[in-house]
Amino acid sequence: MFLETVKSEGLSHLSYVIGDGGTAAVIDPRRDIEAYLDIADQQSVRISHIFETHRNEDYVIGSQELAARTGATVYHGRAAGASYWQGVGDGDCFTLGKSVRLCVLETPGHTLDSISLVLYDVSWSEDTPVGVFTGDALFIGDVGRTDFYPGRRDEVSNMLYDSLHEKLLPLGDHVLLYPAHGAGSVCGSGMAKREFSSIGYELRSNSLLSNSRQEFVKQKVNEHHYQPGYFRRMEKLNQEGAPVLGALPRPPALGLGRFGKLLEDGAQLVDVREPVAYGGASIPGSLSLPLDLLAGFAGYFLDYEKPILLLGATVDQVRQAVPLLVRMDYVKLAGYLAGGLSTWAKAARPLQRIPLVHVDEVQQRLSRRQQEAGEPVTADTTLADSASAPSSDAYTLLDVRRIDEYRSKRLRGALHIYVGDLPERLDDVPRNGTITTFCGSGRRAMIAASLLKRAGFERVENNLGSMSAASSAGLQMESD
Amino acid sequence: MFLETVKSEGLSHLSYVIGDGGTAAVIDPRRDIEAYLDIADQQSVRISHIFETHRNEDYVIGSQELAARTGATVYHGRAAGASYWQGVGDGDCFTLGKSVRLCVLETPGHTLDSISLVLYDVSWSEDTPVGVFTGDALFIGDVGRTDFYPGRRDEVSNMLYDSLHEKLLPLGDHVLLYPAHGAGSVCGSGMAKREFSSIGYELRSNSLLSNSRQEFVKQKVNEHHYQPGYFRRMEKLNQEGAPVLGALPRPPALGLGRFGKLLEDGAQLVDVREPVAYGGASIPGSLSLPLDLLAGFAGYFLDYEKPILLLGATVDQVRQAVPLLVRMDYVKLAGYLAGGLSTWAKAARPLQRIPLVHVDEVQQRLSRRQQEAGEPVTADTTLADSASAPSSDAYTLLDVRRIDEYRSKRLRGALHIYVGDLPERLDDVPRNGTITTFCGSGRRAMIAASLLKRAGFERVENNLGSMSAASSAGLQMESD
Amino acid sequence: MFLETVKSEGLSHLSYVIGDGGTAAVIDPRRDIEAYLDIADQQSVRISHIFETHRNEDYVIGSQELAARTGATVYHGRAAGASYWQGVGDGDCFTLGKSVRLCVLETPGHTLDSISLVLYDVSWSEDTPVGVFTGDALFIGDVGRTDFYPGRRDEVSNMLYDSLHEKLLPLGDHVLLYPAHGAGSVCGSGMAKREFSSIGYELRSNSLLSNSRQEFVKQKVNEHHYQPGYFRRMEKLNQEGAPVLGALPRPPALGLGRFGKLLEDGAQLVDVREPVAYGGASIPGSLSLPLDLLAGFAGYFLDYEKPILLLGATVDQVRQAVPLLVRMDYVKLAGYLAGGLSTWAKAARPLQRIPLVHVDEVQQRLSRRQQEAGEPVTADTTLADSASAPSSDAYTLLDVRRIDEYRSKRLRGALHIYVGDLPERLDDVPRNGTITTFCGSGRRAMIAASLLKRAGFERVENNLGSMSAASSAGLQMESD
Amino acid sequence: MFLETVKSEGLSHLSYVIGDGGTAAVIDPRRDIEAYLDIADQQSVRISHIFETHRNEDYVIGSQELAARTGATVYHGRAAGASYWQGVGDGDCFTLGKSVRLCVLETPGHTLDSISLVLYDVSWSEDTPVGVFTGDALFIGDVGRTDFYPGRRDEVSNMLYDSLHEKLLPLGDHVLLYPAHGAGSVCGSGMAKREFSSIGYELRSNSLLSNSRQEFVKQKVNEHHYQPGYFRRMEKLNQEGAPVLGALPRPPALGLGRFGKLLEDGAQLVDVREPVAYGGASIPGSLSLPLDLLAGFAGYFLDYEKPILLLGATVDQVRQAVPLLVRMDYVKLAGYLAGGLSTWAKAARPLQRIPLVHVDEVQQRLSRRQQEAGEPVTADTTLADSASAPSSDAYTLLDVRRIDEYRSKRLRGALHIYVGDLPERLDDVPRNGTITTFCGSGRRAMIAASLLKRAGFERVENNLGSMSAASSAGLQMESD
Repeated sequence: MFLETVKSEGLSHLSYVIGDGGTAAVIDPRRDIEAYLDIADQQSVRISHIFETHRNEDYVIGSQELAARTGATVYHGRAAGASYWQGVGDGDCFTLGKSVRLCVLETPGHTLDSISLVLYDVSWSEDTPVGVFTGDALFIGDVGRTDFYPGRRDEVSNMLYDSLHEKLLPLGDHVLLYPAHGAGSVCGSGMAKREFSSIGYELRSNSLLSNSRQEFVKQKVNEHHYQPGYFRRMEKLNQEGAPVLGALPRPPALGLGRFGKLLEDGAQLVDVREPVAYGGASIPGSLSLPLDLLAGFAGYFLDYEKPILLLGATVDQVRQAVPLLVRMDYVKLAGYLAGGLSTWAKAARPLQRIPLVHVDEVQQRLSRRQQEAGEPVTADTTLADSASAPSSDAYTLLDVRRIDEYRSKRLRGALHIYVGDLPERLDDVPRNGTITTFCGSGRRAMIAASLLKRAGFERVENNLGSMSAASSAGLQMESD
Repeated sequence: MFLETVKSEGLSHLSYVIGDGGTAAVIDPRRDIEAYLDIADQQSVRISHIFETHRNEDYVIGSQELAARTGATVYHGRAAGASYWQGVGDGDCFTLGKSVRLCVLETPGHTLDSISLVLYDVSWSEDTPVGVFTGDALFIGDVGRTDFYPGRRDEVSNMLYDSLHEKLLPLGDHVLLYPAHGAGSVCGSGMAKREFSSIGYELRSNSLLSNSRQEFVKQKVNEHHYQPGYFRRMEKLNQEGAPVLGALPRPPALGLGRFGKLLEDGAQLVDVREPVAYGGASIPGSLSLPLDLLAGFAGYFLDYEKPILLLGATVDQVRQAVPLLVRMDYVKLAGYLAGGLSTWAKAARPLQRIPLVHVDEVQQRLSRRQQEAGEPVTADTTLADSASAPSSDAYTLLDVRRIDEYRSKRLRGALHIYVGDLPERLDDVPRNGTITTFCGSGRRAMIAASLLKRAGFERVENNLGSMSAASSAGLQMESD
Repeated sequence: MFLETVKSEGLSHLSYVIGDGGTAAVIDPRRDIEAYLDIADQQSVRISHIFETHRNEDYVIGSQELAARTGATVYHGRAAGASYWQGVGDGDCFTLGKSVRLCVLETPGHTLDSISLVLYDVSWSEDTPVGVFTGDALFIGDVGRTDFYPGRRDEVSNMLYDSLHEKLLPLGDHVLLYPAHGAGSVCGSGMAKREFSSIGYELRSNSLLSNSRQEFVKQKVNEHHYQPGYFRRMEKLNQEGAPVLGALPRPPALGLGRFGKLLEDGAQLVDVREPVAYGGASIPGSLSLPLDLLAGFAGYFLDYEKPILLLGATVDQVRQAVPLLVRMDYVKLAGYLAGGLSTWAKAARPLQRIPLVHVDEVQQRLSRRQQEAGEPVTADTTLADSASAPSSDAYTLLDVRRIDEYRSKRLRGALHIYVGDLPERLDDVPRNGTITTFCGSGRRAMIAASLLKRAGFERVENNLGSMSAASSAGLQMESD
Repeated sequence: MFLETVKSEGLSHLSYVIGDGGTAAVIDPRRDIEAYLDIADQQSVRISHIFETHRNEDYVIGSQELAARTGATVYHGRAAGASYWQGVGDGDCFTLGKSVRLCVLETPGHTLDSISLVLYDVSWSEDTPVGVFTGDALFIGDVGRTDFYPGRRDEVSNMLYDSLHEKLLPLGDHVLLYPAHGAGSVCGSGMAKREFSSIGYELRSNSLLSNSRQEFVKQKVNEHHYQPGYFRRMEKLNQEGAPVLGALPRPPALGLGRFGKLLEDGAQLVDVREPVAYGGASIPGSLSLPLDLLAGFAGYFLDYEKPILLLGATVDQVRQAVPLLVRMDYVKLAGYLAGGLSTWAKAARPLQRIPLVHVDEVQQRLSRRQQEAGEPVTADTTLADSASAPSSDAYTLLDVRRIDEYRSKRLRGALHIYVGDLPERLDDVPRNGTITTFCGSGRRAMIAASLLKRAGFERVENNLGSMSAASSAGLQMESD
């Protein structure tokens, strides 16, 4: 029996290839499927089964793509209704070679159609499971989101509690965990950075699992999660089956002429360079989406109808961006600027700068503003992610972190708008002064800065280091 | 200006990417086009032009594939008539960036539609050519074949003479040569192993260029070339435009059950392992086509209608075989046997051996046969590639080299049938004795041995080392 | 916290890199250390700690090499005495970044100095271990060998029992296992092919762990293990510290002249090609050691004092052989024959063949011999690995598997000598008839065949498929 | 015969591997020799000869390193005296296999010991050369520098004229050129970007070759070249033989603590990120040396005695920097900051910014200054690379290009100091105003900006796009 993990950075998505004796199953494949075919070759197996643990919201599942190349059958929880897959439910088992047996366990909660797959090594034991693929039901250090059914949050949280306590935990302390996401995923917020665990270790270390049903449901119902706009498209594609691509697109190098023309005609420009470089100089109107944030944030801001142009520090950066975008079905990739920003600058085209200010400067300005105003700006304290406009127009510190981050620790006087909500809440940002964007480290803050610039804000800065630097510098914080 | 060569081993095919200032042209692309896209990325250029120097017979040109991925325009000699390309002729010039100018020179002879492309670096000189892409008109150490127009050999050889002496040589001694094939190609037989030359060096070292027209035409008319059956299909595809593949096929690993079933149902099995391994043990009915001979010989033996199964020593060998086959439009790749020959052997399936005999053994048997027969077997001496059957049935040394190799030096008493002709000439091989196949080194001889085995010949051996070993051993040779 | 496994095929050796917050530890590094440095770069950590779980017998540990390049400190169980390491024992703990704590657990038995390292993720739980690096104490599906202390086997088996039952199993069912070897290692014979497990799963599936102390010790004392001669050298190097190499040797291509000269002067020639190719044709005197068997068997046959020559089917094969040899301190790599066997054959040098016979042929000969002899050859039935010579000189089936394999199932009439013992027991092999070597699949049998050929045996064959084929063919077996 | 080129970016150094029949020669190897060993493996040859075309000033030649690994003999022009090499001179010839003959041609001028190697393919012609390795005597589009012998410039320029006209050009128009440097090298200033040429093409396109002796010598004597300080060290190492490294250093990841400590203790910090990122934010005291400029400029600024720290945008950037530094003998590589600038920023350590200003802003300031001053700043017009200080202290446009670039086209009012001379000429830069650094594109200008910052200048900016942008914007220029 072999088991290999294919990790998709950015989405923090984990898929698995498990096989024996010449055949293999892939669990939750991504859309760029070469990695699975490579493993199949290395292991000399034919991919015969594809399992989807649930209908995903955050990426296009690659089942159709992989089935088209391998002839494998796709299996999905029966509760999802009929589609390109074959429905499965509790008790359905599948055998691969002489050792692998995978048995379906319905584990609804995150979604109604969620299944887990219990792994037996029948060459060692017929009835003792050795591992379980838990999809988005149980993560390492966290459990799945339960906010995808409006108005039914209490109901599905209870479902998840049952799935955990009646299906997964009873498998035994010794059972290894193989979830569909790791740390950094938007499908949970408290996942461990550690990529290995067992049911017994989770029971001992993850307090969510020792909570009573009541506590558990209360916590799940009160959790705040964001839902980027592209989730709707993913759900539809993953229900109906995404079109087969055949090969990844390879956006071509474009000269300044073609590139400029596409920009003028309305193409959206994604700058995947490091935020520090973006701050140094960038093309007006471009969106800062560095590679590590591309998967997590493109879906809030990019339009599926308009062509996408790319700007990278190197061609390699551009190449790395392609699968990240394709996984979210952004396939209209019109090209990248040959020679990068240098080409643009050498042609004397207009440039924008977003000064990267030190946290000491932020602190000084906040102090000055407070002195001038006589009293502090009131931070938003309501449950909703709203923000009262600052009373002074001279300076705005715009904290774009998630609401839970903001609530747990923040600089006094910061205005909070989540970066993903910014396009809809531009009117809440004062136009008449300097704005410093702020997040955990300065990366998401650069996305926000680029959005503000695009929206016509003029004096926009980014606080490099942001909350991390503020903590290091010992700045005074407040929290809910 | 950059210039990169993409070499396709086996076909000894050379294609080129040349570009400047953000755009590039590809000359004679192969069908697996990733190499060109990679170069385009490395150089940050967009592929805008594709040139075909002529309609090729030996491989599927990748113009359609590359145009589909890049939007580039395809150019081809006007004489080929209308098709998916744009016709060009003498004097048409194309500019890329600030330095590259490519001008068309009609150089018919090898084919009627052959063109060369003269390269200028206009940043250094407007009117002095620096290089020339000669297609199959002029090679390093050789010139193109003139046997593709039955009954018009004299005419096209004269055409080629004119193309050389009126078009190419006058470009000047200093002009560098970039031909479409290198040593080992079936498109010529005397090419140098050296991959660089100039017109001046060719004039001084290649006697074909110093010959009078009369001598030249005589030599070209008398040259013998083989035309594998697949040439017809290539011509048709290259005239009409080959279908776009999108991505290379990835034949899957097959278990013994599926593999065996496909074999029974008539699939053709290609064994790409080294000839020595094939001799050690192989699957009855399989065809020995080691990787380095696959491109040169598959087209004689493989059927386009039947699925192809592959057997390799490693999965990597199988992978390497795929583009070689696809370049000749063999795309029905049903899979490979997982675990290779070992899987077959462990199941106690039937095996065949082809003993690899030493040249000393060959010599002893030939001597014995001669003594028994009283007089030597008469070697074929007619111009046609025919062979008189040996007078003794006890032993046959079957020389499967090209007729020109055979004529220039051979072991006395050998029966000559070119390996490519063997399937059609099996009746000329004595069935009632031992046969030792023989070539230059023992590699083509193994193809022949596998063909004989498949045709039911029982006592088949291969002379490892063949002519090379015979020469080293100082065996007596004869020649025409 | 990150954890990466570096697998050394052949030795089935597993080493680990674990780290957090900029530093990392390597557990049981191999001598070719680039893999660790690459992981350190990918993870942006500095390797600060090196742990040796015990003094290894089967390979040169890379601690000195890695320490020389990184400045890391080496730690080793205190019981090993003083050397280049720092001694550690029960209760010693090491912290890396904010999450990794590794605590030493003395687990003697396999060796007296064996330690395990218990892993805590202190960012989740201060006192619940999540995994344990068990060295050669506890494997997945097996436990360590206890045959390294002559005369003390009972004592050390009891020690191991204590280590398991008082140290490792009490860590808890939920604890993940990270042993130093996987399936295929000579450090155990029953390891699972599965590369992941937990203490709880082992307790439920590995009967060795549920045995009583008495049963356990009895089984361990009665186990048969082989000890290749090179083990002594490994022990010495690993106790004293192996010399630092700096870079892997790169044996050069050699022309026939130099290669032949070295052979004449006594160099040992290792042929790493596939056994089937070796059977087809090989150089007289060479040793068949295909890549996957090189690590397991070179140490029985190769002399440290004589230069080693390599023959591969490709240069890539030769390159792959290098680290495998260096890990066992075979560093006198004089070169490889450029062009491989073909170069040799083309020069008409002498060749040998080892016919690969089908199991049906073996069966026929055995039957014939039995009929001729009137009664069956008596298989060796004593506990010692001795063999009574066959009563007939006409035919010998030489079974070279391990004694435990031989005892559990064999063809009737086979002579048993373990491949590793063959050089010392050549006198037990009848010289006057045909010998067919036999093993599990035909691979080790080819090593044996090459040894016999080198020793002057003339009629040597190999049964391709061997026991696997015999089983598939339904041949009659016997067992102890 | 095969010929492969190994290109060292940055130095624009070209080395060659040429071989046949199992042996090969390397011409002018670099110090990181893996590339040659890889080619030797691919071609299955043993490297037997190493040729040095001359004693290099700009990099450490890898002959000793390569000889130590391969046992090859090193050859060098006899005129260099005795050292680790074997001296050769006019008429000495070397044969490799059946086709390669290399004959020495003494071609002094660039250095007194310069030789060229004339290449014959004796399988085609015994006496017609096909190519020539010209070292630094003749480049594509240029000839070698003649400024290395103070006071003897006229003499050596005449020597070079003779070498060209009596040795190299007479080889014939048809001979291909293989020089030791390509475009971008400091060993010439007018080299073509094209990497292929012939003697005949050079004669027709390179005016230096059609000049009379008088014109030629005059031009060579008047040429201006810079000599970075590290040249002296290279000369010494290349005369005496550089120490053998064995393997490239692998600087480790460092946490902030160790990194900061080394900085405090005087280590020099090289920031290899893109200039735009450096402008965005950087560590005070660091030197901007992006990867593509590292080879060309490190030798002006880095101290051999102090440890070097690296800062990259990615670990991959750091890795790429290592061979570039080692080639110039910068081997004291103490490590790189794990996590890059982000680690620094998150700890709230001090940061510096260098605003990247648009050429329009530069133009406005220059105009304003002129209006204020009443008259233009006088540009330096003397032959020496001196600059008169600007008459106004309000604003300095500091042009750091080479003097020849500056002379041929510049913005009016710019102060010129070559970037390599800046550390010695800091007193010539006005301290009391804003300084905008300026070059061809803004890259070298960022090196200059970082030098100024390090020297305590406060208001330093960089003109992104620089001369290219100024030209595109149609700004008014002046020239000598």
